[in-house]
Amino acid sequence: MADFDPSTLKLSPDGLIPAIAQQHDTGEVLMLAWMTPASIARTLAEGRVVYWSRSRGAFWRKGDSSGHVQRLVEMRIDCDRDCLLLRVDQTGPACHTGRRSCFHTALRDGSEVAIDGGAPPS
Amino acid sequence: MADFDPSTLKLSPDGLIPAIAQQHDTGEVLMLAWMTPASIARTLAEGRVVYWSRSRGAFWRKGDSSGHVQRLVEMRIDCDRDCLLLRVDQTGPACHTGRRSCFHTALRDGSEVAIDGGAPPS
Repeated sequence: MADFDPSTLKLSPDGLIPAIAQQHDTGEVLMLAWMTPASIARTLAEGRVVYWSRSRGAFWRKGDSSGHVQRLVEMRIDCDRDCLLLRVDQTGPACHTGRRSCFHTALRDGSEVAIDGGAPPS
Repeated sequence: MADFDPSTLKLSPDGLIPAIAQQHDTGEVLMLAWMTPASIARTLAEGRVVYWSRSRGAFWRKGDSSGHVQRLVEMRIDCDRDCLLLRVDQTGPACHTGRRSCFHTALRDGSEVAIDGGAPPS
């Protein structure tokens, strides 16, 4: 065992690391977003997932505006230390469209098909 | 339904898109790697996952040297069209260390813990 030091992670040139969010009990992959060492530290301290919004250039604590919180169950690191897997408990939909997962489009027979019947919230 | 056109995906400034590989029947997240529109087209045509190796600057058809092939079961696209989820059938370990998943390190009580007992192949 080694104490975790976020500075040992390999970041992209713009200082970010991709993080995959997976519902811990069903295995469903919910979304991919980006983190910084500071957002990782906040996530571990608060037990709620805090991403870095590339479009807004700001911390993005998931659910602060939508209520669709991600509670962190366990953080995992990949072999190259350049990607994170967040095992989470997702409240409601993870996707801003109101669907449970952001991966709600599948390719079947060369065409795009919607695979999540969950309607966006009215 | 809309015919799939890889050119409609949103790529990073260096022309790549992240792809999450997930074992289709167990839900295990195996790895994250990068693709190009051409590697996506090859993956769909061949039914085997072809990444783009950033370190080698070349196509990387998973398993060509290791035998640890990823057969594509279904490709999914996220809501922002800037990430892919590959539902695959992974032969053997996905990780170059010989472990099933690349995410074999977990953070528990502030320390890094190995969570996959699978030994590297001898």
